[in-house]
Amino acid sequence: MIMPANVKTDKTYPIPDSMKAWVLMEQGELSFSEKPVPMPGKAEVLVRIDAVAICATDLEIIYHGPPALIRGGSPYNKNFTPGHEYMGTVVALGPGVDEFGIGERVTVEIHAGCGQCKRCREGMYTSCHNYGKNYGDVDKGHRANGFTTDGGFCEYQVNNVNTMIPIADSMSDEEATLVVTAGTAMYGLTELGGLVAGESVVVTGPGPIGLLGVAVAKALGAQPVILTGTRDNRLEIGRKLGADHVVNIRREDPVEAVRSIMNGKGVDYVVESSGAAGSFNEAAQMINRGGKICLAAFPSEQVEVDLAHIVRNNIYVYGIRGEGKSATHRAEAFMRQKRFDATLVHTHTFPLAELPEAIRYAKDRVDDAIKVVVKNDRGRDS
Amino acid sequence: MIMPANVKTDKTYPIPDSMKAWVLMEQGELSFSEKPVPMPGKAEVLVRIDAVAICATDLEIIYHGPPALIRGGSPYNKNFTPGHEYMGTVVALGPGVDEFGIGERVTVEIHAGCGQCKRCREGMYTSCHNYGKNYGDVDKGHRANGFTTDGGFCEYQVNNVNTMIPIADSMSDEEATLVVTAGTAMYGLTELGGLVAGESVVVTGPGPIGLLGVAVAKALGAQPVILTGTRDNRLEIGRKLGADHVVNIRREDPVEAVRSIMNGKGVDYVVESSGAAGSFNEAAQMINRGGKICLAAFPSEQVEVDLAHIVRNNIYVYGIRGEGKSATHRAEAFMRQKRFDATLVHTHTFPLAELPEAIRYAKDRVDDAIKVVVKNDRGRDS
Amino acid sequence: MIMPANVKTDKTYPIPDSMKAWVLMEQGELSFSEKPVPMPGKAEVLVRIDAVAICATDLEIIYHGPPALIRGGSPYNKNFTPGHEYMGTVVALGPGVDEFGIGERVTVEIHAGCGQCKRCREGMYTSCHNYGKNYGDVDKGHRANGFTTDGGFCEYQVNNVNTMIPIADSMSDEEATLVVTAGTAMYGLTELGGLVAGESVVVTGPGPIGLLGVAVAKALGAQPVILTGTRDNRLEIGRKLGADHVVNIRREDPVEAVRSIMNGKGVDYVVESSGAAGSFNEAAQMINRGGKICLAAFPSEQVEVDLAHIVRNNIYVYGIRGEGKSATHRAEAFMRQKRFDATLVHTHTFPLAELPEAIRYAKDRVDDAIKVVVKNDRGRDS
Amino acid sequence: MIMPANVKTDKTYPIPDSMKAWVLMEQGELSFSEKPVPMPGKAEVLVRIDAVAICATDLEIIYHGPPALIRGGSPYNKNFTPGHEYMGTVVALGPGVDEFGIGERVTVEIHAGCGQCKRCREGMYTSCHNYGKNYGDVDKGHRANGFTTDGGFCEYQVNNVNTMIPIADSMSDEEATLVVTAGTAMYGLTELGGLVAGESVVVTGPGPIGLLGVAVAKALGAQPVILTGTRDNRLEIGRKLGADHVVNIRREDPVEAVRSIMNGKGVDYVVESSGAAGSFNEAAQMINRGGKICLAAFPSEQVEVDLAHIVRNNIYVYGIRGEGKSATHRAEAFMRQKRFDATLVHTHTFPLAELPEAIRYAKDRVDDAIKVVVKNDRGRDS
Repeated sequence: MIMPANVKTDKTYPIPDSMKAWVLMEQGELSFSEKPVPMPGKAEVLVRIDAVAICATDLEIIYHGPPALIRGGSPYNKNFTPGHEYMGTVVALGPGVDEFGIGERVTVEIHAGCGQCKRCREGMYTSCHNYGKNYGDVDKGHRANGFTTDGGFCEYQVNNVNTMIPIADSMSDEEATLVVTAGTAMYGLTELGGLVAGESVVVTGPGPIGLLGVAVAKALGAQPVILTGTRDNRLEIGRKLGADHVVNIRREDPVEAVRSIMNGKGVDYVVESSGAAGSFNEAAQMINRGGKICLAAFPSEQVEVDLAHIVRNNIYVYGIRGEGKSATHRAEAFMRQKRFDATLVHTHTFPLAELPEAIRYAKDRVDDAIKVVVKNDRGRDS
Repeated sequence: MIMPANVKTDKTYPIPDSMKAWVLMEQGELSFSEKPVPMPGKAEVLVRIDAVAICATDLEIIYHGPPALIRGGSPYNKNFTPGHEYMGTVVALGPGVDEFGIGERVTVEIHAGCGQCKRCREGMYTSCHNYGKNYGDVDKGHRANGFTTDGGFCEYQVNNVNTMIPIADSMSDEEATLVVTAGTAMYGLTELGGLVAGESVVVTGPGPIGLLGVAVAKALGAQPVILTGTRDNRLEIGRKLGADHVVNIRREDPVEAVRSIMNGKGVDYVVESSGAAGSFNEAAQMINRGGKICLAAFPSEQVEVDLAHIVRNNIYVYGIRGEGKSATHRAEAFMRQKRFDATLVHTHTFPLAELPEAIRYAKDRVDDAIKVVVKNDRGRDS
Repeated sequence: MIMPANVKTDKTYPIPDSMKAWVLMEQGELSFSEKPVPMPGKAEVLVRIDAVAICATDLEIIYHGPPALIRGGSPYNKNFTPGHEYMGTVVALGPGVDEFGIGERVTVEIHAGCGQCKRCREGMYTSCHNYGKNYGDVDKGHRANGFTTDGGFCEYQVNNVNTMIPIADSMSDEEATLVVTAGTAMYGLTELGGLVAGESVVVTGPGPIGLLGVAVAKALGAQPVILTGTRDNRLEIGRKLGADHVVNIRREDPVEAVRSIMNGKGVDYVVESSGAAGSFNEAAQMINRGGKICLAAFPSEQVEVDLAHIVRNNIYVYGIRGEGKSATHRAEAFMRQKRFDATLVHTHTFPLAELPEAIRYAKDRVDDAIKVVVKNDRGRDS
Repeated sequence: MIMPANVKTDKTYPIPDSMKAWVLMEQGELSFSEKPVPMPGKAEVLVRIDAVAICATDLEIIYHGPPALIRGGSPYNKNFTPGHEYMGTVVALGPGVDEFGIGERVTVEIHAGCGQCKRCREGMYTSCHNYGKNYGDVDKGHRANGFTTDGGFCEYQVNNVNTMIPIADSMSDEEATLVVTAGTAMYGLTELGGLVAGESVVVTGPGPIGLLGVAVAKALGAQPVILTGTRDNRLEIGRKLGADHVVNIRREDPVEAVRSIMNGKGVDYVVESSGAAGSFNEAAQMINRGGKICLAAFPSEQVEVDLAHIVRNNIYVYGIRGEGKSATHRAEAFMRQKRFDATLVHTHTFPLAELPEAIRYAKDRVDDAIKVVVKNDRGRDS
């Protein structure tokens, strides 16, 4: 491949013209195809993808379409490559980039805001008002790799420097794919105020965000951290990640259990990451007057909500989109410092070529799968 | 009446031993009785009540009981005097009070926090964790006059100095009763970030809080301010108070109308003060990604809510209780400076003895009543 | 001029290939030269400059060099055009721009952050870590027109869309040049917390920022607003802009005068815009425990400061750079709503060709000059 | 001693009528006297003091008078007992107290705000506007034990419940006396924004606040944490508490050393806890544009400060008073969770009767003393 003169490259990373990439065909169908390796523009780099994790949102896109919006529409049959939780190695720099060096290991976050809209100017780039506008006449430079622009189920991808986080040598590829998940939890806790040392936090739902939400809350000093869920093996992982108490809601009423742990009082914060239908009202009942709820998940249908309780108790509710406010950098710092072992959430690894099998494990929770990672070994020394 | 030696009094305000006070008997029934004049304690003053407005919450308490919690239970047959939107004249000072002087005209807000709980220490006194604890063994000194302690449908009342705002001579008694209502709107706008100059704001529901919400938003420089409601005469008052646009939702779909005014975009903020069942979802549809909704009212029943929309669009929702963060002081400053004419919201006045008739006007909206004020003329020079 | 195909233009604004522009030669020397009309890039527009005000910082650059940094060095003999307080008409759009339309009247602010650094990602674009990097290998796209990139003492200039504010038809060209000055004051008040209704504010120094600081503080509801300075005519203008009290510090000790106005107490906030040597310590003495000081000006030399007083009284001090946090938009909203008459600060107008004479008026305060504006009439219908 | 009927006591803690207490006589002179055991009022408890640390501020009061203000004046010959960094056991509860139980081990912070002033209502109780007003006609209930009210160099003291933090059984008495010091550091980091994970922090001055500032910054995830100072043994303790780098400023220029560690850039935050004359300007030179400086110490004289640098670089400076915003609770949470070993700062212990010798160690840094603790064993089981 011939990079333009103003793209810095390095002999040690020969970049092919084309690459293997999974492409979304019909609903639920992926094809292992050949694609040109993309070229980094201003403020962008080319990342060789070394590992990519499968997220519930990837499954949502592959099987149901939205929330991926490819040029405003559905993602099917548009030569679209999904996947957003990836990490890799910088192999080429776009014009003007000096934030990263060739060969640097990085993990990525999703949202590259346009930098021009009201929200981006406020620092709220995951709420960019030009979301999805990255082509044609209305190109605002927004990117959400794996959502509105090509993602990580392939060998190379272009990333805006704003979406990249250098990682420590001591962090494995698999662990690095989890940084963005921890970053989402960190964003939620950030919007709740961030200063949670000594404060009580309930995390509902021991999925990857919930489990890493427990870990991040504990790293920030929260006390007690209470995790609720339905499966004991996941609750047990939550305990290893820092939960002081776990509540299996198949056996206990979550509101009563939490209030019992708190000696009759409520908690300060709830991070709702289950998306279960009744979770919102339960969160509102678990929380103290003036407490705060972060919504990091949501039910697919509308649900009955007791708004009067929210108002009478001065409760604030934060719908969290992505991993804003540079939260991923803060999450990476805690992981680099070994404050918690995110790899407890990683259960399975497959080669890139076996993505469909990896997806089956993730989707059907085969063998108690939590995070399933796909690795790409081409072009690697090791 | 013999005040204790350490209570400062003044000859010009002779204070009787007993006073006339409306007392809540059975549900919906008030009796005009005689009560002892209460005595101010530490950090408290005695206010001679000159005027008191009727709020929808008063009707709620009188006819339905909660949210008034008299010693943890219902307010009926407990010698309880409701009423919380009052103003008057300082006639005696409790021990150690030098914040106010005898003869000073003041208006009041509701929540006197305990000063000891976590929320009070954060400055969130309307979410006091010792709400309602003001008696017996668990006396934390919390007061919410008209809710958990005796209120303003009488001649004298004790107020914590934290709940009092000096008013300008140029402000009439009737206008002064509206300060706390404007303060509630100000609190909502404060929690939304406060800096709304040049930002777009929708206020839903032209009740007193909604109408004064329009006025406060405009005073803070919001642009445009859009008011939605069902009655043209109230919308017209909203226009006089600063609404740039009004939308009668009987004739127009509110979401479409707002987006049309905004040239297809959403607004930055919604102050929901209608309490209508569909208002929450409509607010969420009216608002931009990353926007904020303040809930200053609520439906009596649970309602269906689209939480997915809240999360996907990074929307934050603030249930507002009372008039926290010293918002009433800021509202009074704008009223003192004549930034808006709150008296447009005041429609009727009755003497204290005719409270039941005043309540009928307020409750049944007789003669298009909005704010109905009851005045007490006993012991006044003028 | 041939605009590139992807730059939208409009017949009604024929754009010449070259333009008249003042260029900084040796220190203190400007030459009226010919320059090519610049071309807007991505996220940029071409503005025909209709009016430009002279700021003290322009004089600083012209006569002393820094803080303008042209490619890292002094601004002399580099074909540099100073001037940053300008307004005009959009005459061409760069690729992808749909935020503005041809013919739209706009005023500008200075700092176009890189959008990539830590500060820009936080929304603190006036503290961009790539300040001045807008060329060559390290081009980060930062612009500060009139400081590090060509400014407004000419006929056309390129502006990033982030630096542009649409203005009302009812606002004159001269008034529009003052929006950025009011925006600086608004930024200062924003960082002090923004919610100043009913709070006491001292503004020190009745220069343009101080005078408009008075106006903005009053528009936000501050009470009282106290202005200190040395010249009665300027203090009188401050009074017209909203100062409740003025203090001539040639006749009164400022600290004593302020405390006397406040009945012995201090004020909540001080906006220091005099840059006088003793002002910092005086501000610290004027303010309450826990109060906040904004520094919008500074002495040219180091000064003696009583840090112990700052620490013992929990005082916070905010050095304010530029007009961040979208403050200019909020200032424009107040001006559009005619909350104050900024034109009181504008005293003299000259044609563009007479810039040196205009500068003399501004520099030597000839005829009590405050804001001196230079107008460009070429290519205008009116 | 006969406690009033409404003060809850417990048989297991017989409370004597009088106690041993150190009393400040002439400047620098303490006398071991007898005093009545004080009685807790509303919202207060009686604490049996088990250990008390000596702070530099205690020495300041004992040898120089202010900042202790006993009824508005100097502390000498007023039967005043200094000492504020103490911990102990709850032995009696004032009326209405249910936040603590008899026998509970607690540590204390200093500032009990009045709860009525503007600052207390904002949650800024260490800047209480009624500081020192706790007696006579102007009694506002403010307490600052060891500063304006009797402190901890004695056997029993009364504390407002707001100033008490329950401690873990696993925390020794000596460690518990250090919670308030860690709390001061936490308050500083809180005001700087609090979210310092992955951010760079310089702490200047390895005194107790500086050393625990290192520990708290690291516990919050800061990276790198750089400690500057003059003594290698203290810098070495800093390293054990979490400093990634230490700089001995006798051997290296601190600004150059920090910028070298940061690869030529500045840091995000500086916590100035040395009080050295040049530290402020050095801090300003070490920090990035838009960075923040917390002042936790101060020089005794006025110093030359480069305000222009503060303004041009949009630097914010926070003078920190005490341990506000419930920071002590957050610090205790980290210590309870064993995130750092605060006992590294504790070097010597003496019995209460030997306070003068303990003070000599602290004052003259005998035997490299850092924190010297005095213990009271009377009335203890163990």
